[in-house]
Amino acid sequence: MSHAMRGKELPDEEDLGLLTDLYELTMIQAYWAKGMHDTATFSLFFRKLPAHRNFMLACGQQYAAHLVTKLHFGERQIDKLRRLDMFDNDFLDWLAHFRFTGSIHALPEGTPIFPHEPLLEVEAPIAEAQLLESLLMNYVHLETVLASKASRLVLAAEGRPVVDFGMRRMHGIDAAVRGVRAYRVAGLAGTSNVLGALTHDLPANGTMAHSFIQAHDNEDDALLGFARQYPGTTLLVDTYDTVEAVKRLIAAIEREPTLDIGAIRLDSGDMGKLARQCRQLLDDAGHEHIRITASGGLDEYRIQQLLAGGAPIDGFGVGTALGAASDAPCLELAYKLTEYAGKPRLKHSPGKHSLPGRKQIYRERRSTGEFMGDHLTLRDESAPGTPLLAAIVNDGVFLPEALGSPDQARDASRDAVASLPAALRGLDSAPAYPVAISERIHERRREAEVRLELLSDG
Amino acid sequence: MSHAMRGKELPDEEDLGLLTDLYELTMIQAYWAKGMHDTATFSLFFRKLPAHRNFMLACGQQYAAHLVTKLHFGERQIDKLRRLDMFDNDFLDWLAHFRFTGSIHALPEGTPIFPHEPLLEVEAPIAEAQLLESLLMNYVHLETVLASKASRLVLAAEGRPVVDFGMRRMHGIDAAVRGVRAYRVAGLAGTSNVLGALTHDLPANGTMAHSFIQAHDNEDDALLGFARQYPGTTLLVDTYDTVEAVKRLIAAIEREPTLDIGAIRLDSGDMGKLARQCRQLLDDAGHEHIRITASGGLDEYRIQQLLAGGAPIDGFGVGTALGAASDAPCLELAYKLTEYAGKPRLKHSPGKHSLPGRKQIYRERRSTGEFMGDHLTLRDESAPGTPLLAAIVNDGVFLPEALGSPDQARDASRDAVASLPAALRGLDSAPAYPVAISERIHERRREAEVRLELLSDG
Repeated sequence: MSHAMRGKELPDEEDLGLLTDLYELTMIQAYWAKGMHDTATFSLFFRKLPAHRNFMLACGQQYAAHLVTKLHFGERQIDKLRRLDMFDNDFLDWLAHFRFTGSIHALPEGTPIFPHEPLLEVEAPIAEAQLLESLLMNYVHLETVLASKASRLVLAAEGRPVVDFGMRRMHGIDAAVRGVRAYRVAGLAGTSNVLGALTHDLPANGTMAHSFIQAHDNEDDALLGFARQYPGTTLLVDTYDTVEAVKRLIAAIEREPTLDIGAIRLDSGDMGKLARQCRQLLDDAGHEHIRITASGGLDEYRIQQLLAGGAPIDGFGVGTALGAASDAPCLELAYKLTEYAGKPRLKHSPGKHSLPGRKQIYRERRSTGEFMGDHLTLRDESAPGTPLLAAIVNDGVFLPEALGSPDQARDASRDAVASLPAALRGLDSAPAYPVAISERIHERRREAEVRLELLSDG
Repeated sequence: MSHAMRGKELPDEEDLGLLTDLYELTMIQAYWAKGMHDTATFSLFFRKLPAHRNFMLACGQQYAAHLVTKLHFGERQIDKLRRLDMFDNDFLDWLAHFRFTGSIHALPEGTPIFPHEPLLEVEAPIAEAQLLESLLMNYVHLETVLASKASRLVLAAEGRPVVDFGMRRMHGIDAAVRGVRAYRVAGLAGTSNVLGALTHDLPANGTMAHSFIQAHDNEDDALLGFARQYPGTTLLVDTYDTVEAVKRLIAAIEREPTLDIGAIRLDSGDMGKLARQCRQLLDDAGHEHIRITASGGLDEYRIQQLLAGGAPIDGFGVGTALGAASDAPCLELAYKLTEYAGKPRLKHSPGKHSLPGRKQIYRERRSTGEFMGDHLTLRDESAPGTPLLAAIVNDGVFLPEALGSPDQARDASRDAVASLPAALRGLDSAPAYPVAISERIHERRREAEVRLELLSDG
């Protein structure tokens, strides 16, 4: 039996400390060995929106901040690291007593965000702040990528419910479960994923697959038996011939008026045309209350197209396009040192500039309520608008009062997205949202550049 | 504090049963209520290769088959399902005693595979086979998508080691850890992901990030101190000016000949040019043994281009492009009922045809050893070539002797990929690999179609 099958199937909480890139550990052993314990500020941000995105919905940063306050290494984990034969016993002892003692500022979950704006900032002794990098990035990346995709589907559906059908295409079970948290913040109405639904308190949806119909010798037996067993259910009507199935369904309701059918689901074919035909048949028979839902290869563009074409579809299930955010599965999140020992820090690699110092984002509204632009400032500056970054961890202690409920996050996120300039809420590329970088950040940058030049001249 | 933060952070093994789409449970309750216990065959396959793929590397199917033999529902899971208020107590009692009793045939891990070929087939009482759908798909999808991407990187690197740097962009921690298993099968040389490396026994790689250089007031202090602490290490030389950093490094080795530097890493800029300049400087100083590695925005095309341009790069680290297989993050895997109660089953939805019956794949070689094509047959047929699907679970019992070691899987996979027609091993789209569908499958299909027509006429 292979090595992989001897172990437990899933990592547990104590393993979280090992969910790190090796270089974090080699670097912090070096900091530790050199006695470099000064405070560092790291900023989590991205430099560029992915193609097809006018904004990202920042998600996961408060959850991840909470997680790092619990991060520690158990005996088993320390033993595993010892086996790598790269770490001194004294350093491993230090790691065995590791607890995060620093502070974290973060955006509220579900905040629309733009290039160079920090999703969170960590201030801590440099080894601690460095240790968090890989885990924070992995957590925030996943939820931000998924929430941002879900937000586009919600916008395209114009108020109609969108349900997550993507579990089978999601990258592993952590993504599948934690993704539901992101979907909830972004405003999805439900999920087919049972564990995700139960863990993150989003309604569980789903009734039948084609295999259920195929396993019966007769489509009507399958559909009607199911409807009797599950009053108010949704019936999948496209296994053989959608329109014929709906006609027979209507006839069956005439024979058996107690049948209670909530909706039919279309999963293939010309869905606009089929939806209109089915709506007509149902309405003509007096079944205006039976809803029509659609699934099967849908994404935000297809949903927009169907609705623009007047398709009478009441709700959408989206799988593949959502589950791995397939048009933009990655965001180039960066976790960069911006200050150490009180001095601004810069990286000069081509195309990878960063902005020094601890920061704040102020978001300014027009009198109409629409967001007019952001001011990216140093943290102690003030600027017009509402400050977005707030302390969520202080001296290693998570501040639960800083955290709203998931429903509050969803509502605040919906309001914020609705306040974006209209072009940004569209599916096509819009002009960039204005983010003004403060003069004091520019000054800090020039300071850091002068210092670097002095260093390289010397 | 939010609901999500009250629970444990990660699902555990008993939760695996809940990692399912709700419709699986509503369907199996319906089968159970109707006494439909006949044997079903489900086949896991895809209809179409994703763009940019000439083959997929089937991965995860044996691991997933092993997992389902352990699938069960604990008391806590049953209680959670009860809360959904959709399931009868008798059905939940049945579920509490669920153990998989069926059989599974699967391909060896790392097998190159083409449209319509089963990665695995499940035969079991229909409720059991249906219950596995979402979990099997999620597991096999992830590893197949990642192994297939990794395989392209390995091909592009032409024998040079490729290391996974992608943890921070991977979709959650299950993907990050299990991904390393897929990468190992596909032939990656190492991973930066510590837990992945320790769990799946692939070398852990990594030394330092830019932040380490930036935290020091002087680049040389950072690099030389690190080299003294970690003999043989790789130094990141592009934080400010790559060529200048390498010149100073060579001078430092002259002053301090005990410095043992294994490699330098380039992470930005014109890497082909920089690699040539650095190689020249190192060689001129007699440091031919110091290797040059590259990372930063690499994918298989960029690697191919660098090597075609003669860049003297000895190894590659790949992050974003690999971590979520960003050019093809999803594969449209289907898990379809192909037989129930001894009768072939079909789905007729437009564009979603499936092939009935239990199957086998025979892979035929030319006298040169190159694969010439596959024969997709019913399981009891014979055809030229080697049969690929083998029993891995019998009557609910996993057959460990059917499973090789991960090293065997990697070696077999490497040999199989090397036996593909050359065009398929290239990065560009190649003519489809020939997969001949047997006459008896066509017959079974016609049979099923006739039966469906009779049914719909009736």
